[in-house]
Amino acid sequence: MESAIPAHLQTVRTRHRRVPDDYRPPYSSFVARHKPAINRVVMAYFGIQYRGVSPEAVGGIPARMASRFGRDNGPSHWDRAQYIDRAGFTNVVSVAYWDDVARFDAWFAPAREEWTGRAEAGIGTFIEVLRPGIERYETLFSSPDRPEGIAALAEGMSSEVQEHAYWGGMRDRIPLSQTSEMAPDGVPVLVRDGARLRVIARDNLCLIRSGQDWSDTDASERRMYLDDVEPVLREGMDFLRDEGLAIGCYANRYMRVLGADGGRSEKSYGQSWWKSLAALERWAESHPTHVKIFGAAMKYLSTLGQSAKLRLYHEVTVAAADEQFFEYLNCHPGTGMLAAVEPAGPG
Amino acid sequence: MESAIPAHLQTVRTRHRRVPDDYRPPYSSFVARHKPAINRVVMAYFGIQYRGVSPEAVGGIPARMASRFGRDNGPSHWDRAQYIDRAGFTNVVSVAYWDDVARFDAWFAPAREEWTGRAEAGIGTFIEVLRPGIERYETLFSSPDRPEGIAALAEGMSSEVQEHAYWGGMRDRIPLSQTSEMAPDGVPVLVRDGARLRVIARDNLCLIRSGQDWSDTDASERRMYLDDVEPVLREGMDFLRDEGLAIGCYANRYMRVLGADGGRSEKSYGQSWWKSLAALERWAESHPTHVKIFGAAMKYLSTLGQSAKLRLYHEVTVAAADEQFFEYLNCHPGTGMLAAVEPAGPG
Repeated sequence: MESAIPAHLQTVRTRHRRVPDDYRPPYSSFVARHKPAINRVVMAYFGIQYRGVSPEAVGGIPARMASRFGRDNGPSHWDRAQYIDRAGFTNVVSVAYWDDVARFDAWFAPAREEWTGRAEAGIGTFIEVLRPGIERYETLFSSPDRPEGIAALAEGMSSEVQEHAYWGGMRDRIPLSQTSEMAPDGVPVLVRDGARLRVIARDNLCLIRSGQDWSDTDASERRMYLDDVEPVLREGMDFLRDEGLAIGCYANRYMRVLGADGGRSEKSYGQSWWKSLAALERWAESHPTHVKIFGAAMKYLSTLGQSAKLRLYHEVTVAAADEQFFEYLNCHPGTGMLAAVEPAGPG
Repeated sequence: MESAIPAHLQTVRTRHRRVPDDYRPPYSSFVARHKPAINRVVMAYFGIQYRGVSPEAVGGIPARMASRFGRDNGPSHWDRAQYIDRAGFTNVVSVAYWDDVARFDAWFAPAREEWTGRAEAGIGTFIEVLRPGIERYETLFSSPDRPEGIAALAEGMSSEVQEHAYWGGMRDRIPLSQTSEMAPDGVPVLVRDGARLRVIARDNLCLIRSGQDWSDTDASERRMYLDDVEPVLREGMDFLRDEGLAIGCYANRYMRVLGADGGRSEKSYGQSWWKSLAALERWAESHPTHVKIFGAAMKYLSTLGQSAKLRLYHEVTVAAADEQFFEYLNCHPGTGMLAAVEPAGPG
């Protein structure tokens, strides 16, 4: 049992954890451990959006990005997923991760120019990037042997950590929570740069990517996941997509991960942008669908323990204002962080 | 909207609340407000326990206590309830409240002598008393117009309070939480005084009384409570009664309140003794039955709001070691805080 906060990031606290020092979680979970030399990472979402356009017409665009990812200074890891948004547009999003900002910067400029520098008819593109300091995010995994997302860049996984399986564990795993409330500050602002729309977001904006992987489940566990858990999860995801703005969720995407061949894999994740970590906490703790999910997961994992084949993970980041970049070209006004600012109107 | 902590008990914090200052709960709740001059209260549980003894044989005993309650320096408020414990014994418990310790002390000595000074065959009696400082407990009510328990002694109810409808609100409502973790300290010890068994408990022992009142519900709401909510509540109460010890619940009683005529009213409450507030928090947040209750209550109260006729309330106390008194005569070893110490054996 160890703290989710690695030793080299433990500081003199001005804020307490939510659990006493003798707390023991009812089942095991694990966190990604970077080498101590890593002090900043990059999480970059490259999206493409279309409706009424044949997949063939847009197929080459993600392929070009995949090619770019393979070049010098490209990401250490990336994956691709898709979903259909509330407005009925298909969105294909490639997420790429770096743990060296200089490499990202060297790679990014031409990639950006290609992605959002020039519009194609009927196709929107967007870039959403966080480059958080290492003290500003946390991960959690139900199994230590299959990293996803930012954890794919880590040196390895922790042993069992203490700060999980209670409300507030997410906050307690973020090193900055030792000394900061991580309160939101500022108001998102829309900046027009020709046809490109940028959103200058706010201090302590929050991002969560929360994933499921049922590829290893046998028939009975798979049925339990797909029949009992997934519909409840979907209901919660739909709520956030359609009604999230009122509770501080700017955007939610319930994504199906695509395999190397472009087909749907047996993995999914929800990805959402939040006004603050507190807003995410409140939803997770009080919305009936998520409370039901949490209760089911507690029971499921407490019972099956490490024998469960369903894998769950997430990564949660609270980013400083200068660690964020949002840029949209030819996207509808409900796309990503555009939903947080005034309707963009034509242009 | 006001803080659950009254102004005269607000201090410079060394510990933060769990929610930001701009938090707004999704429905209204209220707390009892004592006169500022009140600095300590008394909560005294007088129980009688029997099995295989006719109610007629024991009926006079609670009646004698009721008579005592009516004498000089008697409680400002009391009620009576009963349940059948795990060992199959009927327990009838009268709970009495004072907000003047001197009056309680003047009243208590002869009452104690009558209650636990002399055993009657087949009948056990017990006394469980807390006399917490006003900074060591909190209350919560779904409606402001029907006080129960300690709130019956209050000057009135607050307006809507901020600290509720999230995990951690219970702690945040206790004034002492501003400066203390309220961690448990010490180990419960059994002391024999002739046939009387006393338990010297531990610092920051926790008591909750959590009640339901469905007497005002119309047919459809009543059916919803009795068919959908009550069975889930009972399941959680049974879990605590039968398996609570492993998670820090020394004793749980799911009580049916008795009316003035001795018949069952349409009120119930759960009353339980906990190793610590943290142990109570963990159960409430993670046990499937309680998570389900919480989720249902959030939905129910968010939807019906003040039009709900089901009334919910609780009082939670974290008592210092010198604010506790536990005495048992002729009770089985699983009774109350006896469960926290070595089996008493014969005697």
